[in-house]
Amino acid sequence: MQEKILQTIDAYGMLEKKEKLLLGISGGPDSIFLLYFFAGLVKEYKLRLVCAHFNHHLRDEADEEERFVRKTCAQLDIKCISAGKDVKSFFDGDSLEQTARNLRYDFFLNCARSEKIKKLALAHHKDDLVETVLMRIIRGTGLRGLRGFLPKSRYRGLTVIRPLVEIRKSEILSWLKAKEVSYCLDQSNLDEKFLRNKIRHKLIPLLEEMNPNISNGLFNLGISAGQDYEFIYAYSQKEFAALRNRSSRNQIGLDIEGLKKLSPAIFNNVIRIAIEELKGNTRKIDNRHIDEIRKLILYRPLGSLVDLPDFLVKKEDNMLILQSCVV
Amino acid sequence: MQEKILQTIDAYGMLEKKEKLLLGISGGPDSIFLLYFFAGLVKEYKLRLVCAHFNHHLRDEADEEERFVRKTCAQLDIKCISAGKDVKSFFDGDSLEQTARNLRYDFFLNCARSEKIKKLALAHHKDDLVETVLMRIIRGTGLRGLRGFLPKSRYRGLTVIRPLVEIRKSEILSWLKAKEVSYCLDQSNLDEKFLRNKIRHKLIPLLEEMNPNISNGLFNLGISAGQDYEFIYAYSQKEFAALRNRSSRNQIGLDIEGLKKLSPAIFNNVIRIAIEELKGNTRKIDNRHIDEIRKLILYRPLGSLVDLPDFLVKKEDNMLILQSCVV
Repeated sequence: MQEKILQTIDAYGMLEKKEKLLLGISGGPDSIFLLYFFAGLVKEYKLRLVCAHFNHHLRDEADEEERFVRKTCAQLDIKCISAGKDVKSFFDGDSLEQTARNLRYDFFLNCARSEKIKKLALAHHKDDLVETVLMRIIRGTGLRGLRGFLPKSRYRGLTVIRPLVEIRKSEILSWLKAKEVSYCLDQSNLDEKFLRNKIRHKLIPLLEEMNPNISNGLFNLGISAGQDYEFIYAYSQKEFAALRNRSSRNQIGLDIEGLKKLSPAIFNNVIRIAIEELKGNTRKIDNRHIDEIRKLILYRPLGSLVDLPDFLVKKEDNMLILQSCVV
Repeated sequence: MQEKILQTIDAYGMLEKKEKLLLGISGGPDSIFLLYFFAGLVKEYKLRLVCAHFNHHLRDEADEEERFVRKTCAQLDIKCISAGKDVKSFFDGDSLEQTARNLRYDFFLNCARSEKIKKLALAHHKDDLVETVLMRIIRGTGLRGLRGFLPKSRYRGLTVIRPLVEIRKSEILSWLKAKEVSYCLDQSNLDEKFLRNKIRHKLIPLLEEMNPNISNGLFNLGISAGQDYEFIYAYSQKEFAALRNRSSRNQIGLDIEGLKKLSPAIFNNVIRIAIEELKGNTRKIDNRHIDEIRKLILYRPLGSLVDLPDFLVKKEDNMLILQSCVV
């Protein structure tokens, strides 16, 4: 299995010798395996490892898990930074999952800065990717969501690598059992838990009846959707920069004639990029909203308005104005 | 329901007044509904309609169905062209479904040419799209397959429209029942039948337990994947034309330095376009093959070869040569 992981690392250019690496470690089987894997690589690759553990304080066992990770790191001679926040007190009512993720990534970023590390390794594996792609399909998604997660990506200046992305969960569990390595039970997946379990125990077996090789198919779909989205997003960012004509803290102007010339795929993404810049995210925005903006541009008279969650879109002379309503 | 279909026609710019339209009609409920729908539109839109029915000779009832379509057309005062071929005798061992589809589309093209018609209307509806997207996901696909089918597309010089794409099968059946319109039983879906039935009766109900709105989600995914693929494909075609450096009947040369600069999504499509041009299709070609070509370019010495189904790829000085092995 180590051989297979090294091939993944190689194929996606994940690692160079003498690198300093932050490991995001929860205490569950996948991340404990990742910890042992990199501990075994230190000598050959001359790596410098720092483990980062975030305590979500969401379960009774959270503190015990933190102690377990610290102890394992001490045994493996890996520096460990741990910290925690009471996730529930930050919950904005949208998704506890998302709140937890945001706080955890903020913590990783802080660790990386204070340790002067530019790369974060996470323990997501192939089954995670397959389940994530299915979950996104079920909840409704486009290309962007289909990506699941990428083997190698960027997060605010940090390179994120997932060396286990081609490894099955069962392979990880077998290894841990064979080496008699202990780990904490998988952290419950909060509000996603019910859906994930149904996907794992009912949907995937049914899909496997129809195609025993479905996991590979979904894995490849996730990877290729990632590549496709990457290209479309980069292209759209360039177009956005070229069409952006006026902006202030709470409004963005886009050239209407330029917008009309874009193909639908790029138009959708340019509008999403503008909204993201204005609001910080595109939550609450779906295809119908983008379609209303398209119709505003194509069919409605000058001066018309579209009222969307937290912002307004106005059609002026030759400009589309997106204006934030949140002070 | 007519109102909803007219909205679809409007939204995708499917129809203009005074158009001459070819209707691809099987005799099943969906296409008989389409026939009645357009018959009701003739006056207002000043349409000229020609019905094209292809007899696959695959089932005992095929001739009866042909007579039924001719009779219905006579009642509605619509010109009807029908012809048939023994599909099984053309079967190339790959997919009977695909053989039937190719022969049927060839027939539609011939009808369009002889009648000087540039537009073909087909009866695919929303459930067809949802099932097709799921079938493609199950069999393994990328963006290209996710499209299912498009509301409006091109097929060798013919514009193909699917005005029922936002209508549910159940709506069609209710209308036919209410109007007491008769139709033939759905044509069996040949080798796809087993998988389609499992999708319809087991998979979709399970997905609906997880998200009652899943059909809309899959429908939107199909539409947006169509837009995304359209852009990526058009962009790749331009790059292919720019990088193509030498070619004869059975070989194509592509500039290697130019290929190296492409993002992965575009690289994959440029290679697929080259293979399609060389072989006429990209069947038997999967991601691993494209990946071998990528590795040939990046890592292997000049003069190296990759041997793929029906063709060879060679790395020469500054050229990648794709060469057909089929005489």
